[in-house]
Amino acid sequence: MEAARLHAYTHEMDEALSFDTVDAPQPTHPTHVVVRVAGAGWCQTDNHIIEGMWDPYVDQPLPMTLGHENAGEVVATGEAVTTVTEGDQVICHPQATCGVCRPCRQGEDMYCEASFFPGLDTDGGFAEQLLTNERAVIPLPDGVDPVDIAPHADAGITAYHAAKKVARAVDPGDHVLVVGVGGLGHIGLQALAAMTATHITAIDVKAEARALARELGADATVDPTSEDVVAAVDAITDGGAAQLVDFVGSDVTTGYASDLLRAGGDHHVVGYGGHIHVPAQDLISNEVAYRGTLVGRYTELQELMALVAMDAVTLRSERFGFDAINEVAARLEAGKIEGRAVITPP
Amino acid sequence: MEAARLHAYTHEMDEALSFDTVDAPQPTHPTHVVVRVAGAGWCQTDNHIIEGMWDPYVDQPLPMTLGHENAGEVVATGEAVTTVTEGDQVICHPQATCGVCRPCRQGEDMYCEASFFPGLDTDGGFAEQLLTNERAVIPLPDGVDPVDIAPHADAGITAYHAAKKVARAVDPGDHVLVVGVGGLGHIGLQALAAMTATHITAIDVKAEARALARELGADATVDPTSEDVVAAVDAITDGGAAQLVDFVGSDVTTGYASDLLRAGGDHHVVGYGGHIHVPAQDLISNEVAYRGTLVGRYTELQELMALVAMDAVTLRSERFGFDAINEVAARLEAGKIEGRAVITPP
Amino acid sequence: MEAARLHAYTHEMDEALSFDTVDAPQPTHPTHVVVRVAGAGWCQTDNHIIEGMWDPYVDQPLPMTLGHENAGEVVATGEAVTTVTEGDQVICHPQATCGVCRPCRQGEDMYCEASFFPGLDTDGGFAEQLLTNERAVIPLPDGVDPVDIAPHADAGITAYHAAKKVARAVDPGDHVLVVGVGGLGHIGLQALAAMTATHITAIDVKAEARALARELGADATVDPTSEDVVAAVDAITDGGAAQLVDFVGSDVTTGYASDLLRAGGDHHVVGYGGHIHVPAQDLISNEVAYRGTLVGRYTELQELMALVAMDAVTLRSERFGFDAINEVAARLEAGKIEGRAVITPP
Amino acid sequence: MEAARLHAYTHEMDEALSFDTVDAPQPTHPTHVVVRVAGAGWCQTDNHIIEGMWDPYVDQPLPMTLGHENAGEVVATGEAVTTVTEGDQVICHPQATCGVCRPCRQGEDMYCEASFFPGLDTDGGFAEQLLTNERAVIPLPDGVDPVDIAPHADAGITAYHAAKKVARAVDPGDHVLVVGVGGLGHIGLQALAAMTATHITAIDVKAEARALARELGADATVDPTSEDVVAAVDAITDGGAAQLVDFVGSDVTTGYASDLLRAGGDHHVVGYGGHIHVPAQDLISNEVAYRGTLVGRYTELQELMALVAMDAVTLRSERFGFDAINEVAARLEAGKIEGRAVITPP
Repeated sequence: MEAARLHAYTHEMDEALSFDTVDAPQPTHPTHVVVRVAGAGWCQTDNHIIEGMWDPYVDQPLPMTLGHENAGEVVATGEAVTTVTEGDQVICHPQATCGVCRPCRQGEDMYCEASFFPGLDTDGGFAEQLLTNERAVIPLPDGVDPVDIAPHADAGITAYHAAKKVARAVDPGDHVLVVGVGGLGHIGLQALAAMTATHITAIDVKAEARALARELGADATVDPTSEDVVAAVDAITDGGAAQLVDFVGSDVTTGYASDLLRAGGDHHVVGYGGHIHVPAQDLISNEVAYRGTLVGRYTELQELMALVAMDAVTLRSERFGFDAINEVAARLEAGKIEGRAVITPP
Repeated sequence: MEAARLHAYTHEMDEALSFDTVDAPQPTHPTHVVVRVAGAGWCQTDNHIIEGMWDPYVDQPLPMTLGHENAGEVVATGEAVTTVTEGDQVICHPQATCGVCRPCRQGEDMYCEASFFPGLDTDGGFAEQLLTNERAVIPLPDGVDPVDIAPHADAGITAYHAAKKVARAVDPGDHVLVVGVGGLGHIGLQALAAMTATHITAIDVKAEARALARELGADATVDPTSEDVVAAVDAITDGGAAQLVDFVGSDVTTGYASDLLRAGGDHHVVGYGGHIHVPAQDLISNEVAYRGTLVGRYTELQELMALVAMDAVTLRSERFGFDAINEVAARLEAGKIEGRAVITPP
Repeated sequence: MEAARLHAYTHEMDEALSFDTVDAPQPTHPTHVVVRVAGAGWCQTDNHIIEGMWDPYVDQPLPMTLGHENAGEVVATGEAVTTVTEGDQVICHPQATCGVCRPCRQGEDMYCEASFFPGLDTDGGFAEQLLTNERAVIPLPDGVDPVDIAPHADAGITAYHAAKKVARAVDPGDHVLVVGVGGLGHIGLQALAAMTATHITAIDVKAEARALARELGADATVDPTSEDVVAAVDAITDGGAAQLVDFVGSDVTTGYASDLLRAGGDHHVVGYGGHIHVPAQDLISNEVAYRGTLVGRYTELQELMALVAMDAVTLRSERFGFDAINEVAARLEAGKIEGRAVITPP
Repeated sequence: MEAARLHAYTHEMDEALSFDTVDAPQPTHPTHVVVRVAGAGWCQTDNHIIEGMWDPYVDQPLPMTLGHENAGEVVATGEAVTTVTEGDQVICHPQATCGVCRPCRQGEDMYCEASFFPGLDTDGGFAEQLLTNERAVIPLPDGVDPVDIAPHADAGITAYHAAKKVARAVDPGDHVLVVGVGGLGHIGLQALAAMTATHITAIDVKAEARALARELGADATVDPTSEDVVAAVDAITDGGAAQLVDFVGSDVTTGYASDLLRAGGDHHVVGYGGHIHVPAQDLISNEVAYRGTLVGRYTELQELMALVAMDAVTLRSERFGFDAINEVAARLEAGKIEGRAVITPP
C-alpha cells in the first residue's frame, strides 16, 4: 500500500515526507485492529515531529509513516476483539494502550506504560491502512462521515481535555480566556461554551480567527497586534480571568499567566514551541499554576463525540488529496491553514 | 512602644531594621483585635521584603514594622468581636481578611479583596503589640506556648497548604519528593507523613537537614552535592514521583519537574527567588504542572494546630531576643539558621 | 409596620397567618442591614413550617413573621457595613451568617454555627421591612426588578445548589433526571441546561409541567400517571441516568434511586415530606447515594444571579398582594400554583 | 478437582455447601488466568448468597462454587497475558473485568459492563483452582503468604474503598466514626489511621472488638449495649462526626446518620441486611448523605497491598481446613468468628 513517510528530520516542509510503497498491516495480537484510513488530520505536531522536536521525548524508528488523527473503516481484527467488527466506521484515539498497567486502570490511558502511538512512534495514518488496537477505536454514530471528524482524534480530544479541566474549575459568571483560535482553539472554545456558563474572551492575532471565535460563542475578542492585552483583559474581566487555555504556547503567550489571571487561576499549556520563563515568585504572589495538557483520555473522545452528536461542536476543516501532503505541511508552517487540514489517503 | 522597622530597601541585612519608638495600636474598627506579641518568627520572606522583592507586588508604606508570624495575648478588641476576648492566647493568621468579598466567602481568604497583611503592607509583629482582626486570630489550646508555635503562623501554614494539596492528590504507595528541609520543609514533611501513606524522599544539600528529614519520617534522602539527583530519584521511585514540593524555588530546583515527576505529577512552588525556565513541551510531554503556593487558609491554620495538638508536627525553632533581630536576618541570609528563628519582643 | 405572622402550628392553610402591627426592625449590630421588602416568595417550606414540620429541627419563637425569599431596598445599615448602602436594591440570601465560625470560613455558610434565618427562626419578609445582615445581601444589577427575582433567594438557590453538584459529576452525553418541574424544578432544569451538555429527562405528573420542561430545555419527559417510569427511563437512558434531582421528595420519588440510576449515580433529595425506605443492599449493589440538599451558599446565589444576567435562567412567577397571603398558602397546598408565587408587602 | 458448591438457597448454614468433584478450569480466552487457590476468605456475603439475598441482583447458575476472596499461584494463562506468568503468587480482585467498556476505561472497574465475578456469578475459590483473568490478578511482593492476605481480596478492598472516600473528605482534627469492628471494620480502621490525621471513634457491641479497635488506632470507643450512642458521640465529637463508615448496615446502624453526623457529613453504607428508613427531611436539615460502597477498584487493591507492605494494615484472620467450610458458615452466622476466616482448599 502507499504511505507518506519521514526518512530524516528536516526543516524543509515542502519535501518532508516521501511516498513509499509498504506492506499493509496485519493483526498480530488478539487485540489488534486494522483500519482503512478515510481521513487523517494534519497537526502542528506533525511539523514538530518532522523538525525532530519529539526525538528527545520518544523513540522514533525512521522511516516512519506520520499521521495520528485518523478515522475510517475496520478491515481486520484480532481474535479477542469484541466491541468492533469489520465494516464498522471508527475514529481512532491516537494512543493504543494496554489496559492492564496502573495508569490505564485509573482511566489515565495517556500515561499508559505499554502503549504505541501510530504516527509518533509506529506507522501512522498517512497511508491506506493503519494498525491500532481495540482500546483505541470508537464506533461512529450512523451518518457521521469519518473524513469530517478525523481531526477530533487528536486536535479535538486535546482541546476538549483542556476545556474539561477548565469546566471543572469554573462557576457561572467566571471569565475564561482562549488564546489562539486555530485548529485546536476553535474546538476548545465550542466545548467551553457547551459545558460552562462563563464569559469567554478569545485572543488571536488574526482577524478571521477572532471573527470565527465570535461566531462560535466568544463574548469578546482581543487583538494583540493592536491592543494592550493586559489592559484589554482587565477591562473585560474586572480583575482577571479564572482560567486561561493557551493553544499557542509561544514565549509571549506563556507569559500571560501572572498578568491575566486572577488569584488561584490556571494557565493551561496546550500549544508548545516556546519557553515558559517566569520568576517563581510570580506563581506564588497570586497562586497561579501552569498545567500541561497531553492529548486526552479515550473516554474524553467519547464525550467529544457526544458533543458532536448534539451539534455542540462543529469542526472547521479543509480536505486535501494524498499528493498534497507536503504542501499542507508547508502551508501550516506559514500559518496559511484555516481550521484543520484533513488528508484523504488513496 | 518599641518596634523594629524597615526604612529603606537594602541588601545589608545586619543593619536592615531600626529600633523605633511608636504609638501602640488601638482598635478602630468593630472587628479589630490588638495582640501583645509573645513570639514573632523570622521568615525568608522578611529578607526578601528588605531587599525590595515584594515592592512590585504590594504597596509597602515605609517605614514599616516587619514580622508576619505572630502569636501572643489579646489585649484589646473591637465591639463586634465575639470569638476572642482579652487575655486569650492566640496565633495570628498573617492576613486580616474582610469576610464579605467573594473569595473570603469561598473559603479562599488568601485571595481577599480587602485585607491587610501586617508585616507586609501594614505594621507587623516585630514590636510589643500588633493590630490585626477577628478573622485572623485562632485561640490556642491550654498549655501551648505562643513563642513555641509562632512560626506556624506563616512558615507552618504555607508548608501545610502545599502538603494538603499533595495529600489530596496521592494514593498509598505513591512517592513524594520534599525539596529543602529548612524552616518550611521540616514542617511540610511532618504534615505529609501524618496525612498520607506515601514514600517520602527528602532532597537537601545539608547533611543536618537530611538527618532531620530521616528523623521526621522521610524514607530516603538525596544529597545533590554528591549524587546525580535524577538517577537517585529514579532508583528510589521507579519511574518518578507523583508529587514534588519545592521549598527552595531556585533556578536549579524549579527545573526538577520534568525529570523527577511521573506523568500527571505536580511541582509545587513554595520557595522562591529563582526563575522557572522550561520549554512548554516539557509540561506537555508528561502532563506535569507548576503550581504556586500562597500561604494558606485560616482553616488550614486550624488544621495545622490540630496536628500540633496530636503531636504530629513539631517545630524546630530557636529563640532570639529583640536586640538580635538584624543578626537573625544576616544569619538566615548566610544559611546559618537551623529550623526557624523566633524573635521575642520586649 | 404590618406583618403576616404565624401564632400557632396548624393544618388550616387558609387562615394560617395573622396580619399584625409590629415595630419596624432597627440595626442593633455593626453588621446588620434592614431591607424594605419589595417581593417575598412563598415556598412549600412555608406550608411545612405552618404545619410544624420544622419545629423538631429549629427553635421557632411564635408568633413569628414568615417569609424567607426576600428582595428589596436597603433602608438602614450597621456601622461596619461597607458593601451595601441605603437605596441599594438587593436579594437576600435566606441565612444571615457570622463569617467567623469554621464552616463560614470554609465557604459552607449554610452550616454556620451562629446564624439567624429570617422567616424560619426570626421574623421574615412577609412584612414591610426585614432585618438581616451584610453577609446575606447581594446587590442587584441595574434594571433587575427585585419582585421578579425574589424567589431565587431560596427556591432558586436551592435548585441551583443541587444542579451544581450534578454539573460537577457529569460528562457530556450523560443522562440527568429532573423529578418535579415546579417552583424549584423549573429553575434547576434551566441551570442544568446552562451548565452541562447532558440529556435531561423531566418526570412530572402534570402535563403543564412537562410542557414547561420541554420549553426550558428538557430532551424528554415522562408522565408517571400513564407510563411505567422504570421502563420509560431505561428506554431513554439505555442503562440508567448518571444523576437524579428529586424536587418532590415523596415516598414514591425517593424510591427511584436504585431503579433509575446507573452504577455510581446520585439521588439528590431536594423536596421532602416523604420517607426514604430502601434495603441497605440497594445502595451497595449499584453503589448509589442519597444526598440531601440544604439551600445553598451565598456564592451560589451570586452564581445564580450571573445566570439570570445571562438570560440563562428565567423565573416563572405570579404576583399576589399582601392580603392574598393565606390564599396563596391554600392554593400551593392544593397544587394550584404554577411556577412561584411572590407576595408584595405594602 | 474438589469444590464446595451451593446447590440451593437455604438458611441452614451448617450444611449449605456440598463437596463435589468437578473439572479443573482451563483458559479459553486470551486473557484468562487460572490460579491454584492457596487461601479463600469466607465473607458475610457468602452467607447472604446462601440465603438467596443476591438472587434478585445477579444471575446465579446453581450449583455454583462460592468463594470470592482468593489468593494463590498462577498455573495457566491465556496467550495475551503479559503481566503474570505460571508460578507467580497473586491476590485476585473479585471481579474479572473487560477493560474496554466505558466504566473500565474510567477506572470504575466495579461498574464493568462485561465482567464475571467468581463466587457470585461463576465458580469461585472454594476449590483447588479458580478461573479469572489478567485484569483481576495482582502479583504479591516476595515473602507475602497468599493465605495470610486472601481476605483483602474482598473484605480488605471493600473496607479500603470506603476508607479512601472518607480520607478524601476529611481534614486533620476531624472526627470519624467506625461502626462495627469485624472482618471489614478492623481493616477500614487501620486504613483510616494510616491515611488521615483524624480522631477515630469505634462503635461495637462486642468488648473484644472495641479492645481491638483501641489497639489498631481508635482514639475512643462506644458500647451501644451500655451507652447512649448519641450522647456519647456528641461528647466525644462536640457537634457530630464528619464521616461515618457503617460496616454493619442493620436497621439500627443505618439510622445513625442524622444523629451522629455534623452538617455535610456522609454515612457510608458498607454492611447490609437492614433497611434505611428515614424522613427525607432528615437528609435536608443537615445536608447529610447515604453513600453505598460496592467492593473497590483494582487500583485500590494495589494501594491496600502498599499499605500491607508498609505494615500499616494487618489482617486478623484464622485458618480453617476445607472440610470445616460449613462450620465456618454457621459460626459466622452466630457471630463467632473474630477477624476473618480463611479456608485452605486441598
